[in-house]
Amino acid sequence: MSDHPLVPGPSSAIERGPWHYGADYVSVYFQGDVRPLAKLVPKAFNVDEGLCMAYVCEIISVGDAGEAMVASRPDRTIYQEAALGVKCRFGDRQGIFYPVMWVTTEWSLLRGILNGYQKRLADRISMTKLHPLNPGLRPAGPGMEFGGFCVKGPETTLKVAVKILKAGSPKDLPSFGTTFGMRRFPKTDQTQGEVDELVEILKSNSKVSDVWVGTGSLSTTLDVGKIDVLSGAVYRSGFTISGSKVLN
Amino acid sequence: MSDHPLVPGPSSAIERGPWHYGADYVSVYFQGDVRPLAKLVPKAFNVDEGLCMAYVCEIISVGDAGEAMVASRPDRTIYQEAALGVKCRFGDRQGIFYPVMWVTTEWSLLRGILNGYQKRLADRISMTKLHPLNPGLRPAGPGMEFGGFCVKGPETTLKVAVKILKAGSPKDLPSFGTTFGMRRFPKTDQTQGEVDELVEILKSNSKVSDVWVGTGSLSTTLDVGKIDVLSGAVYRSGFTISGSKVLN
Amino acid sequence: MSDHPLVPGPSSAIERGPWHYGADYVSVYFQGDVRPLAKLVPKAFNVDEGLCMAYVCEIISVGDAGEAMVASRPDRTIYQEAALGVKCRFGDRQGIFYPVMWVTTEWSLLRGILNGYQKRLADRISMTKLHPLNPGLRPAGPGMEFGGFCVKGPETTLKVAVKILKAGSPKDLPSFGTTFGMRRFPKTDQTQGEVDELVEILKSNSKVSDVWVGTGSLSTTLDVGKIDVLSGAVYRSGFTISGSKVLN
Amino acid sequence: MSDHPLVPGPSSAIERGPWHYGADYVSVYFQGDVRPLAKLVPKAFNVDEGLCMAYVCEIISVGDAGEAMVASRPDRTIYQEAALGVKCRFGDRQGIFYPVMWVTTEWSLLRGILNGYQKRLADRISMTKLHPLNPGLRPAGPGMEFGGFCVKGPETTLKVAVKILKAGSPKDLPSFGTTFGMRRFPKTDQTQGEVDELVEILKSNSKVSDVWVGTGSLSTTLDVGKIDVLSGAVYRSGFTISGSKVLN
Repeated sequence: MSDHPLVPGPSSAIERGPWHYGADYVSVYFQGDVRPLAKLVPKAFNVDEGLCMAYVCEIISVGDAGEAMVASRPDRTIYQEAALGVKCRFGDRQGIFYPVMWVTTEWSLLRGILNGYQKRLADRISMTKLHPLNPGLRPAGPGMEFGGFCVKGPETTLKVAVKILKAGSPKDLPSFGTTFGMRRFPKTDQTQGEVDELVEILKSNSKVSDVWVGTGSLSTTLDVGKIDVLSGAVYRSGFTISGSKVLN
Repeated sequence: MSDHPLVPGPSSAIERGPWHYGADYVSVYFQGDVRPLAKLVPKAFNVDEGLCMAYVCEIISVGDAGEAMVASRPDRTIYQEAALGVKCRFGDRQGIFYPVMWVTTEWSLLRGILNGYQKRLADRISMTKLHPLNPGLRPAGPGMEFGGFCVKGPETTLKVAVKILKAGSPKDLPSFGTTFGMRRFPKTDQTQGEVDELVEILKSNSKVSDVWVGTGSLSTTLDVGKIDVLSGAVYRSGFTISGSKVLN
Repeated sequence: MSDHPLVPGPSSAIERGPWHYGADYVSVYFQGDVRPLAKLVPKAFNVDEGLCMAYVCEIISVGDAGEAMVASRPDRTIYQEAALGVKCRFGDRQGIFYPVMWVTTEWSLLRGILNGYQKRLADRISMTKLHPLNPGLRPAGPGMEFGGFCVKGPETTLKVAVKILKAGSPKDLPSFGTTFGMRRFPKTDQTQGEVDELVEILKSNSKVSDVWVGTGSLSTTLDVGKIDVLSGAVYRSGFTISGSKVLN
Repeated sequence: MSDHPLVPGPSSAIERGPWHYGADYVSVYFQGDVRPLAKLVPKAFNVDEGLCMAYVCEIISVGDAGEAMVASRPDRTIYQEAALGVKCRFGDRQGIFYPVMWVTTEWSLLRGILNGYQKRLADRISMTKLHPLNPGLRPAGPGMEFGGFCVKGPETTLKVAVKILKAGSPKDLPSFGTTFGMRRFPKTDQTQGEVDELVEILKSNSKVSDVWVGTGSLSTTLDVGKIDVLSGAVYRSGFTISGSKVLN
């Protein structure tokens, strides 16, 4: 039969993995309030500090051996993403859980849900892009501002802004540990099976480059309590995701 | 925590069910070739005759007790759908399986996948609408043509056209029996759980009205073999879906 | 050559007129402040009272003799519109001028600009729709709420809500007189020609039906001063526009 | 009053110029048939050779002194464009006329129409993008393929593909001379004014970089006769447009 939308394959919404990503980020790091943040993550995760990040990014992504799709089906290789992540702990393991991750394409929505991300479809995500040959634009550098927003229905669910102070390096970006997730596929009837499990995303090949650090600001429809922005950053990153592993 | 996108609830992509539907259809009934059609349905379903239907529709849908959303969040109550269904048999039970059902919103995509429909997100679905006060349009009637199409990426995945010959009644519409589906949520790692089950959609409260019957035509990117159109129809329909039940 | 996008013809963005419309409206009538309202209309128009209306609607529209397009190219016959109009006076002629009218398609954008409407392209307009066969919905009637919103970029530029109190008739809808507009096509160089003229839209065949009246509320990004809502209404309307005539 | 959509200004659809552009192109150069090509350009332009180009590109654009908008309103600075241009002659001046240029935003649509481009709104334009940190992608180089497509309604109006053979330089790209255009704003009533003039786009600050040349292919809904592809190219380009000047 045709591939089921959630079962990776040629006629599915999801390419066969592992999946490779190259992304340009505008990120803001902030402190929220522990109590509302604790309500945004599964109970098994402890929110100790209230450290969070929010970002908007554009991603070029291909399945393993799917390089040709950047030419034959570019619409299956480009998407925008906006997300807010909360630092938390599972036992003695530190990580980040994203209560919501908005994306602009079906395939990133379903692939993410399959792997354990709480993805939602955005109506629109837009973010700063520069171009080295545009006579009216300077390259990234001190004083330059970057921004992005995510719209869903009548709401701007996330908006971030970063003002660059100086060039940085990958180690200037706060570390959150592993990426936590949750895979759910609930019953709608007692005869059905279900999946309900906490996972750790299997990420490798991480690289970061073109880091600029500065100040930031953000607004969101999620309740994160009082927002105390720590810093902002603009950078590029690449990585591979091969799936996710059940936490225990 | 925030509701998981697939777990019905106030902050989920999916409203709590049962879900109620009111739809306007442009449908074409046709005979395809049994062999390619058999490849479009799960193996457990037998394609005996090759009878199929294809349609484009606009749907107004609300969750139970969610009537207020038509005013507060109309974007969560309106979508377009295009689909092609194949008559098949599970044991001695007759039904219809939809290899692909394209929809225009996140919530109809995820709600459908949860219930067992092989839903995919369309870029655009457009179909004939009339308006009784438009001075340039006649009401539906003999000779009037209706059409619709579904676009995804660079492809028009489905296109239907109907020319009305005469007024009809609900019993003029071919009957397919129950609606079959498949719920899948596969593993991406051996530690994970999974769901893989054939289901029957739990549909009730069915009503049909404003039936017009005539000739039809269609084209699709699905391989259904040689297409022999039997008839076309335009009608309105309403129903309730409470979930789905595992077939056995 | 191919038709220019602004010159009505078969390969243009604009069909040959006259153009026929059938629309479903959710409208709110309100009093704004004369001073900010005066800044929203051309100087030649006097804002005496501050009476305004704001609406969201879905329109089915065809060019004269273009009835077949509802089937062959339905995407060229359906759009959503959201607008805010200000009652004003040109000499002794009463009318309404719409400082902005957001629409969801290219052809309604360009056709409107050609005729003298200050049209802009919305990212999304969504509004209440009911369906008589949806088992979870009641028909329009007292107590029922209708709503709609318009999104452009990161902003919800207009949002309206109406709560029905009772059935009404066309004469329950406030009258604004003629529809004023402005046709502009400015120079970007001294060698170029230009158009700059105030117009009156040539509207005929007006019909109104299915009127329900009640209370309303609205919010907008336009500066209309303090909003004092007078009433809300839900209704259907049909009319023909043949172009526009220069005011003098 | 609010700025008219076509009159450059802060609340208009069009920023004040000059306008600066930085773009990434996938282009195909081909020979079409002179006779059908002559029907795609205004009569005053002579099609002598049948040389054409077709491209898909992503553009970052800002108005003069509008650099801040890349952060505050990125949706007003990024768009995709797809176009087909025909080499032609006005008197003894060589140039290129674009019978249709599809774009993805309102502001590029209206700005282009104001300056003399025959712009139309696309539903979607998608094209190859690479990312240096994506572990599954190689950088541009020999053997690499690029592609793009433009969808409008039920049609893929333009599709291009390029296979890189080798690194190139700006002088490897065929030269077409000046860019011709046509400004039209027709009457819909005898009382109205109108504009109808052939123009030359005022372009400066042109730069080209990152050129790769190779083979190409294309398909389009425009009638260009038999297509004989000459070459394909991938490159970046930057330029400034200050308006247009009437040809005489």
